[in-house]
Amino acid sequence: MACELCDENGGDVLWRDERCRVVQVDEPGYPGYCRVIWNAHVKEMTDLSHDERAHCLEIVLAVEATIRELVNPDKINLASLGNMTPHLHWHVIPRLRDDPHFPNAIWSAALRPAQAAGARIPLAKLRAALAEKLAAAGKPSIS
Amino acid sequence: MACELCDENGGDVLWRDERCRVVQVDEPGYPGYCRVIWNAHVKEMTDLSHDERAHCLEIVLAVEATIRELVNPDKINLASLGNMTPHLHWHVIPRLRDDPHFPNAIWSAALRPAQAAGARIPLAKLRAALAEKLAAAGKPSIS
Repeated sequence: MACELCDENGGDVLWRDERCRVVQVDEPGYPGYCRVIWNAHVKEMTDLSHDERAHCLEIVLAVEATIRELVNPDKINLASLGNMTPHLHWHVIPRLRDDPHFPNAIWSAALRPAQAAGARIPLAKLRAALAEKLAAAGKPSIS
Repeated sequence: MACELCDENGGDVLWRDERCRVVQVDEPGYPGYCRVIWNAHVKEMTDLSHDERAHCLEIVLAVEATIRELVNPDKINLASLGNMTPHLHWHVIPRLRDDPHFPNAIWSAALRPAQAAGARIPLAKLRAALAEKLAAAGKPSIS
């Protein structure tokens, strides 16, 4: 079965190792929104070994920590859904009080338009911050 | 500031230790839906120590494993949002193709009514399955 996360990166790659990658999500109103995508086609977290689970979640939380420093959000939202694309991936979403859906989930109907001001964090800035955070955690990139 | 997850359990408690608790969520159409709630008032995962993060996520994934065995869902959805209640809690949601929102997130508009058939898993059954899973993982309940 064709899987878009097997066939493509799923966004501009910010960081990658043998097991997973971090991509920037281009969603209006959500600067700093990233996804952590497991490289192999795996459906659920509990399909991973204990070591793989820990690795995946360490990357997710390193992304959270990086985004908190860059965006200073009112809240971080973490989610692994995959109902449409059952290939393990995590959403790491910085939420701001004036974002399109706050305080609701971003999968609900929008309450207000996206602010043009908070358009996008430059790719190089996000990539450098994430590389530094992950290197400090003993997680080097292979890219 | 008043916090409902500081003041109340947030549902029927299935399992509890010194650091967190698992409660059953009474949501029509979502049998097996549980939340893992951190006991202390903490906002984000990265506000926890590394040991606490690992503990929290081990509980979340033990709940996932237990629900998969009991419900055999088409997908598991995991999410830590907390925009309205910024007290760390995880949603562990078994998704079925005929549930009210599939394949969309449960925070979107419902697509169909809840099936009465899949009403609720008996509390005692869920509690026993979870206790067994967590005891096997070296995570005894204190309740």
